[in-house]
Amino acid sequence: MKDLVLVGIGTGDPGHITQAGIAALRGLDGVLLPEKGPGKDDLADVRRDLLVAVAPDLPVYAFPMPVRDPNLPYAEAVARWHDAIAKAWAVAAPKHVARLGLLVWGDPSLYDSTLRIAARLSPAPNVEVVPGITALQALTAAFAMPLNEINAPVQITTGRRLREDGWPEGVDRLAVMLDGECSFRSLDPTGLSIWWGAYLGLPNQILRQGPLAACGPEIVELRAETRSAHGWIMDTYILSRTAR
Amino acid sequence: MKDLVLVGIGTGDPGHITQAGIAALRGLDGVLLPEKGPGKDDLADVRRDLLVAVAPDLPVYAFPMPVRDPNLPYAEAVARWHDAIAKAWAVAAPKHVARLGLLVWGDPSLYDSTLRIAARLSPAPNVEVVPGITALQALTAAFAMPLNEINAPVQITTGRRLREDGWPEGVDRLAVMLDGECSFRSLDPTGLSIWWGAYLGLPNQILRQGPLAACGPEIVELRAETRSAHGWIMDTYILSRTAR
Repeated sequence: MKDLVLVGIGTGDPGHITQAGIAALRGLDGVLLPEKGPGKDDLADVRRDLLVAVAPDLPVYAFPMPVRDPNLPYAEAVARWHDAIAKAWAVAAPKHVARLGLLVWGDPSLYDSTLRIAARLSPAPNVEVVPGITALQALTAAFAMPLNEINAPVQITTGRRLREDGWPEGVDRLAVMLDGECSFRSLDPTGLSIWWGAYLGLPNQILRQGPLAACGPEIVELRAETRSAHGWIMDTYILSRTAR
Repeated sequence: MKDLVLVGIGTGDPGHITQAGIAALRGLDGVLLPEKGPGKDDLADVRRDLLVAVAPDLPVYAFPMPVRDPNLPYAEAVARWHDAIAKAWAVAAPKHVARLGLLVWGDPSLYDSTLRIAARLSPAPNVEVVPGITALQALTAAFAMPLNEINAPVQITTGRRLREDGWPEGVDRLAVMLDGECSFRSLDPTGLSIWWGAYLGLPNQILRQGPLAACGPEIVELRAETRSAHGWIMDTYILSRTAR
């Protein structure tokens, strides 16, 4: 491939795609589509539906999505996983296709690995990015709330970092992503509020908001139940130390 | 007004509008459009061009944009300014219009006042938000770069906070918005890198990237020149403490 175009598609709402995203998809020679196996392909279906709606003639090259080894140390597991995905792309991409695309959940800039995987390709393609709506934006839009307080900083972090480092210095607003373990449980909930959303932008979107002491346990339970019912979950949340 | 719909339109690239944004605009009874006065209405023109392209029959209610008093303390100046804008909306909005919209630069969640101004309206309308591409996303897309390092936090802050507080604790990545004064000048540039963009998404987009020690002075000069030439500037940047 000569060009690799990473198109941010938002979080599952077909309305999240931008005009630039549609134009980019229509300008491709083909698109790489990850497949995770039976029962886990809701997200592949969302991508396929989007393609049918906006670029129905675009050739689709499916590739089996490698799995991260849970027994390796985190950094090494991630590095090997990214290597394996880059190889899977190279295998799935036909040699004659010059301008290939990937549909990236959310936006390629925010806690997404696609840019780092693309950097592993050899020879290196020209990488272009089309921004898309992130889960964080879908969350703030659903609550019609600002991410930041006036002139105040916001930190975006991961569940893992929240568990390991606790509440960061110098900020009263925290957005947490990639949190598979409800890491807010590691915090003293006194004085904290949470705005939580799962399946943001999808028809089964769930929202909860309130004091963390009251809402936290409900979210833990709801997350386990819905994850078990759907087979997967994607969620994100904002925590605030100041009343709103 | 019964409903107030805040539609994030991105940063000036007409391709930034989402399908949901277009649908929201087409479902309105009218839209409020700020006007800043002769020589400062490039942004109003971008909004008008977008409306002509996607919702040409939508009635437009222009209002004169109040100016923030530079002689008051910052918090008081902002509060009074938001009061004045809320009043200007109420004056401009015809009584019979039930579903009114506002085109919000970037996304209503990120360092934007529209939600806070809307909260001043009485009686309170039902406020809906349609997310849009932020300047930060336009910046990371232009550089095809991730905002965050793997499993690392990112802080988003303002120029004012950077000048007052210095580099924040616990993060190696900083995104700076609302910075009219090149506040990176207040930092020791040793070991820092910058990714800077102005007029992101517009035809006159400018990008600069490199070590802050080398790039900083060039950006200061370029920003002053282009601001003087255009009459206004909007810019944002990312700083990193780690080599990339």
